[in-house]
Amino acid sequence: MRAYNFSAGPSTLPLDVLKEAQRDLLDFANTGMSVTEISHRNKAFSQIVEEGESLLRELLQIPDDYAVLFVQGGASTQFAAVPLNLMHNGKADYVVTGNFAKKAFEEGKIYGDAACVASSADQTYTYIPDLTQIPFRKGTDYVHICSNNTIFGTRYIDFPQTETPLVADMSSEILSREIDVRRFGVIYAGAQKNLAPAGVTLVIAKRSLIQNPLGICPTMLQWKVQDENGSLYNTPPCFSIYVAVLVLRKLKQMGGIAAINEINEYKAGLLYDFIDNSKFYTNNVVKKYRSIMNVPFVTPNAELDDAFLKGAAKEGLVSLKGHRLVGGMRASIYNAMPVEGVKSLIGYMKKFEKDNA
Amino acid sequence: MRAYNFSAGPSTLPLDVLKEAQRDLLDFANTGMSVTEISHRNKAFSQIVEEGESLLRELLQIPDDYAVLFVQGGASTQFAAVPLNLMHNGKADYVVTGNFAKKAFEEGKIYGDAACVASSADQTYTYIPDLTQIPFRKGTDYVHICSNNTIFGTRYIDFPQTETPLVADMSSEILSREIDVRRFGVIYAGAQKNLAPAGVTLVIAKRSLIQNPLGICPTMLQWKVQDENGSLYNTPPCFSIYVAVLVLRKLKQMGGIAAINEINEYKAGLLYDFIDNSKFYTNNVVKKYRSIMNVPFVTPNAELDDAFLKGAAKEGLVSLKGHRLVGGMRASIYNAMPVEGVKSLIGYMKKFEKDNA
Repeated sequence: MRAYNFSAGPSTLPLDVLKEAQRDLLDFANTGMSVTEISHRNKAFSQIVEEGESLLRELLQIPDDYAVLFVQGGASTQFAAVPLNLMHNGKADYVVTGNFAKKAFEEGKIYGDAACVASSADQTYTYIPDLTQIPFRKGTDYVHICSNNTIFGTRYIDFPQTETPLVADMSSEILSREIDVRRFGVIYAGAQKNLAPAGVTLVIAKRSLIQNPLGICPTMLQWKVQDENGSLYNTPPCFSIYVAVLVLRKLKQMGGIAAINEINEYKAGLLYDFIDNSKFYTNNVVKKYRSIMNVPFVTPNAELDDAFLKGAAKEGLVSLKGHRLVGGMRASIYNAMPVEGVKSLIGYMKKFEKDNA
Repeated sequence: MRAYNFSAGPSTLPLDVLKEAQRDLLDFANTGMSVTEISHRNKAFSQIVEEGESLLRELLQIPDDYAVLFVQGGASTQFAAVPLNLMHNGKADYVVTGNFAKKAFEEGKIYGDAACVASSADQTYTYIPDLTQIPFRKGTDYVHICSNNTIFGTRYIDFPQTETPLVADMSSEILSREIDVRRFGVIYAGAQKNLAPAGVTLVIAKRSLIQNPLGICPTMLQWKVQDENGSLYNTPPCFSIYVAVLVLRKLKQMGGIAAINEINEYKAGLLYDFIDNSKFYTNNVVKKYRSIMNVPFVTPNAELDDAFLKGAAKEGLVSLKGHRLVGGMRASIYNAMPVEGVKSLIGYMKKFEKDNA
């Protein structure tokens, strides 16, 4: 029986995408080869990469002066790539709103004067600082934010106005809501939440910003090199890119980002409304900043949390355990989580409350 | 119809491995989740990583004081990781025997005094230099070689005795023949030839050598960090690692490296014998150094090469086009290429010669 999988990442993929990938795993596009076996120089595969870029440009309305890249590894590798491509003056501001924002900041410090100019650590990252009040420093190379915080379940509503390019890690919310790409210098996103199996990261970068990577930047981390080679400088993570394209095709068929955003708001609304109307479950994120992708919550105590998780797994509601930094539960309800999955979760939450309140 | 796929990489995988992966693509280990959807923190997945390490240690007889790591991306990323982890004295020797050996050398120069101490460029990389005669420099951090040269079809027979650690890129021959790991400080190999779908690279590194990466080394490229975290520092390329384990299980069932090496020698022998006995086909690699993984060859002229490739594709013998640097044909006959595939190729070569000689 297929589970409803609330994992924060790797996470659930659309069932029809999986079925298509399953079919192609023995014979891709009548080549007599698996999609995992075909050379990345084969036209049948390079077309996949081109289609992926084209679909992303269309869905996210990415201007032509931005590169769209599929790079290897996860967002953690990009934590280094950001300063290595951009930090010409050796100075960058970071806003620390969670675990990965902090990791990006720590990595930035390796390469220059990275400063944390705002943080929500004082309240266990349960809000996003008001960035209209933040004194961003002069002469920085960029300002870095993480737009959705997977572990703590927050997201930005407004993006800051910055004099230097805004760089955003959107790993856990890319393609879930409309964004104005022009507001950003660079957007990057590990694939394993809303896009594809782990192993590939999407980078959207204004081309004028990426022409001079630092001298110490590994060739493979140079966005310019990836752009000049159409993401095919070396053998890319072909299977992940291929599944990304299946996911993007499906998103387009569904009506694009506006349509999926509406569904996401609806799913998150169902869950938050239920939690807010309950005296048993709590989500302690400042309402305005609640993520529509990651919904952390707790029962009245840790023993009940454990019992909740065990019972949920028996009902086929899996990977609901919260991150060790916050405990309790977390329902990651990415694009691919069906409305029925959220409804099933709420049904179980009701029953568990009734049995244990 | 399944093709015989002679691609240099991504390349053919064992059919039964693909069938198993296909089954698990909808439900892995009765979790109700695809192997691409399961959290890397889930025990069912972390056991896969542990099994992979354990099988590699057994198959390659890797000593306990060596780390066995699954890292993100391809060997090209490791071209930078090698100096970034090892180049404490800022000095390394490189032996340049082909395209990727050269790329590794170029990358080394970014980080210090990398010198090409021997090369076979004078004869279009058709041999391996005699390294008993090479004056390796004093005080280097390592000597870097590429043990099998995918494009030019050569391989090392003896490995050089070096005072400083020997680092080997074994991407296109890992697991194809027995090696004495103790002869090496570090071995690395992109997966997409003999191990798994692209996106993961195997690193085998003597732990005492990797404790002090350079200060500018990105965290994700630090082998020490990957070792301390059991290759799970961040979300790994789960699907590639999982398929690697299926491949390793199969290798063990087949009798391990000695058994597959025998088959590989047999397959390569069939093909080289046929070429050597033909007046129509030529392989110009010095015989002693011929690769048993990659077999480049030409017909008497480029027009016939083109006709050969077109005809081969019609017979289901695909991805035989040689690299643009050498032209002609190249048959990559990795572990997963069945003996029947090589025999079919020879059958077609005979027929083509008869029709065109």
